Amino acid sequence: MKQNLISNHVQLDESGKLIHLLGLEGLPKSQLLDILDKASNLLDNNGNLKKSKALDDMSVANLFFEPSTRTRNTFEIAAMRNSANVINVDLANSALKKNEALMDTMHTLKAMQIDMFVIRHKQSGLPHHVAQHLKGVSILNAGDGTNAHPTQALLDMLSIHQHKPNFKDLSVAIVGDITHSRVAHSDIHALKTLGVTDIRLIAPKALQHESERCDTVRCFSDMDLGLKDCDVIMVLRLQKERMLEAEIPNEQEYFENYGLTSERLKLAKKDAIVMHPGPINRGVEIDSTVADCDQSIILQQVTNGIAIRMAVMQILAKNS
Amino acid sequence: MKQNLISNHVQLDESGKLIHLLGLEGLPKSQLLDILDKASNLLDNNGNLKKSKALDDMSVANLFFEPSTRTRNTFEIAAMRNSANVINVDLANSALKKNEALMDTMHTLKAMQIDMFVIRHKQSGLPHHVAQHLKGVSILNAGDGTNAHPTQALLDMLSIHQHKPNFKDLSVAIVGDITHSRVAHSDIHALKTLGVTDIRLIAPKALQHESERCDTVRCFSDMDLGLKDCDVIMVLRLQKERMLEAEIPNEQEYFENYGLTSERLKLAKKDAIVMHPGPINRGVEIDSTVADCDQSIILQQVTNGIAIRMAVMQILAKNS
Amino acid sequence: MKQNLISNHVQLDESGKLIHLLGLEGLPKSQLLDILDKASNLLDNNGNLKKSKALDDMSVANLFFEPSTRTRNTFEIAAMRNSANVINVDLANSALKKNEALMDTMHTLKAMQIDMFVIRHKQSGLPHHVAQHLKGVSILNAGDGTNAHPTQALLDMLSIHQHKPNFKDLSVAIVGDITHSRVAHSDIHALKTLGVTDIRLIAPKALQHESERCDTVRCFSDMDLGLKDCDVIMVLRLQKERMLEAEIPNEQEYFENYGLTSERLKLAKKDAIVMHPGPINRGVEIDSTVADCDQSIILQQVTNGIAIRMAVMQILAKNS
Repeated sequence: MKQNLISNHVQLDESGKLIHLLGLEGLPKSQLLDILDKASNLLDNNGNLKKSKALDDMSVANLFFEPSTRTRNTFEIAAMRNSANVINVDLANSALKKNEALMDTMHTLKAMQIDMFVIRHKQSGLPHHVAQHLKGVSILNAGDGTNAHPTQALLDMLSIHQHKPNFKDLSVAIVGDITHSRVAHSDIHALKTLGVTDIRLIAPKALQHESERCDTVRCFSDMDLGLKDCDVIMVLRLQKERMLEAEIPNEQEYFENYGLTSERLKLAKKDAIVMHPGPINRGVEIDSTVADCDQSIILQQVTNGIAIRMAVMQILAKNS
Repeated sequence: MKQNLISNHVQLDESGKLIHLLGLEGLPKSQLLDILDKASNLLDNNGNLKKSKALDDMSVANLFFEPSTRTRNTFEIAAMRNSANVINVDLANSALKKNEALMDTMHTLKAMQIDMFVIRHKQSGLPHHVAQHLKGVSILNAGDGTNAHPTQALLDMLSIHQHKPNFKDLSVAIVGDITHSRVAHSDIHALKTLGVTDIRLIAPKALQHESERCDTVRCFSDMDLGLKDCDVIMVLRLQKERMLEAEIPNEQEYFENYGLTSERLKLAKKDAIVMHPGPINRGVEIDSTVADCDQSIILQQVTNGIAIRMAVMQILAKNS
Repeated sequence: MKQNLISNHVQLDESGKLIHLLGLEGLPKSQLLDILDKASNLLDNNGNLKKSKALDDMSVANLFFEPSTRTRNTFEIAAMRNSANVINVDLANSALKKNEALMDTMHTLKAMQIDMFVIRHKQSGLPHHVAQHLKGVSILNAGDGTNAHPTQALLDMLSIHQHKPNFKDLSVAIVGDITHSRVAHSDIHALKTLGVTDIRLIAPKALQHESERCDTVRCFSDMDLGLKDCDVIMVLRLQKERMLEAEIPNEQEYFENYGLTSERLKLAKKDAIVMHPGPINRGVEIDSTVADCDQSIILQQVTNGIAIRMAVMQILAKNS
């Protein structure tokens, strides 16, 4: 794998404690397992979440420079269930084009006694930049450019763990636009950390650049070959604006080559699980019958997403 | 009355308990009175509302597909006064054109541990569709198309009850665009359930289609005749976009024929009360002096609206 | 100073208690000091804020008719830290062009059991109009036209007091568009009330109309002269839309004549403090090195802003 230019080292303090969550590359396995454990404990036997008073005295700000109602809602709900005050900073009218103005805004919000910042930004590495320059607060990366989406990967790991506890022996297939997917990048790092040795990336040739970056994953442009006997199928959302770039003429053709259908699902192991970060494009990257079948754990992923975000907030709050 | 194609039967479970609030047609009188009772008890002697811990452990999502800051605020305030977590789902950018995508969003929000959904949608019957297909949550209809607006009608009944406890003997006039008004439809159902036998609908001929649907109400196009000796006057808001359709040339002409003036108010009983769902168009459907006179209970309706919504949420939370 | 046509007298009840905060003109010194005291007590030794239960049973509505995410956030955070319910009323789509419709909205929100209204409006005197006509609620002026911004001035006074406790002996320079600045107007009233006798206004000739209104302040168009030996420098934000009006050809020229640079800062006393209401335009009204230097207390002002707003809310809640 090529050197990643964006380093996550500031997320650990000198004693190795997690003080920000920026990415999963370089996060020790023990810490990753710790997050999964804590999240598990937030779920009761029916898979429901209890409220916690862990952040009773804290304030969390959601800073979404890229619009994403859905992901913002999950962080908002996680913060509320932790009893934190939550503030959604409206960035629609903000002309924070220069990093300087952005940092002024961040310093100002910190001075307003915000303890934790959830940041989504189209610029890879931006949450890292903020974490490096704004002391005394916790930064939670909610997706930066094509770089990382660590809470999504953590909830994916929790979801896999609930069905397939033994990571080492798993065959995991990731299907879709690997090149541009921060979800895929974070998932690959997490899977490697947890000891998965059979990671398969299934994508059109034009979206396989990741192959050059990885030495322990295999790339497939033939979906049928890639799915053979795997335990976990992680379907990525097709970003329509990437289609042209990837020389995909239309959604129909994408579905024919890379849509997960019932037939294709049969190529995987009988008890394989199907995952998707949502929202799903039915009939594009996944067939409706597969999305709704017993092997699909897509909605369970959503609930796990709240648990993971609550857990990460609790850890950062404790270490701050 | 013609068969209503949208059925509210799913709002009661097999044992007859209220598990959603979709509409007032078919809601047993005992349940309707129960809601009014519970709401009354939330008001102190000065007509003020206390906070409650009833929904302390629950999360409510506001889903307003039609913009209505005002009604959304009432549900938000009611949920907060019940100590619930409240989340306003931003639907401005959501391309939920297909019901399929909408249901995926609903399932996702449920997986995020939302317990109760407040839904406003321009499509009649949409909250019913959701209630039928999304198990384990409570649906509160905040207005669907031209079909129903049950909490508005409930607050109207509570407001009438505070001044005229004996429903049976009342003469109630509803003035305005009855045809397209979900408020009027729900009010008529509630009034009938409570035993009101003299319901009068006052509207231009073009807006009297409701007459065909009702056999126990009388229609008037002459406002003076309709108001004669009535106890309650419910003025509807003029939806300006409906004017053309109703062959109303302009607001001035509407006011001349159907605006509630001091003179016209004198045709009703001396102690008649004046109601309006708000926001009022002064000088269009109601004269300023009438809106602000002692017989007007318009602001009391607003406070009752919070009490009713709190009460409904408490009942649904208990029955869920 | 010319007669101010907008009177703040309704902010005190007959017994002289503060029941609204509309402006600082006419606010007795004892009351002003009382607010500063209460705010001071909300800050711990490290300058951090604790949460309070003071408004546990109350609801606060933010009504921002002018967009200002930043100031709205400070009031939202202050209300939340006081344990109040907070509701942001979305006014983007509201057609409240007539005062009549605005007052109907206010009465409606009051009937929804809102106890306190934070109002920002481009029309000078609007919060005063509301306070006069809406009984039984508290009005907090968050900036009205070019008239007043009392919480900003209060936080400025608290910030000065933390560094220079003896107001009487201070020389205070205010730099920028004094004419149109509600911040400047409120600061001048507060400084006078607190006994400051050397107030200097530094501005281009075209923006010095204030000079005619004041008899106890001195105006300077030469910045170097105005800054000489002063203790406090309050830099105003350049409103770009005012530049043409003030015959300022461009930002660069403004900076050359009125930008606060390190060189100019040396003309003030050695321990002079630098203040700015934010957000700062680096390189326009203030040089980056000055904004970030040890003499700058800009971020401390932000924290004090939360303390002041919490304190004012607590006083109004107690007196309501």
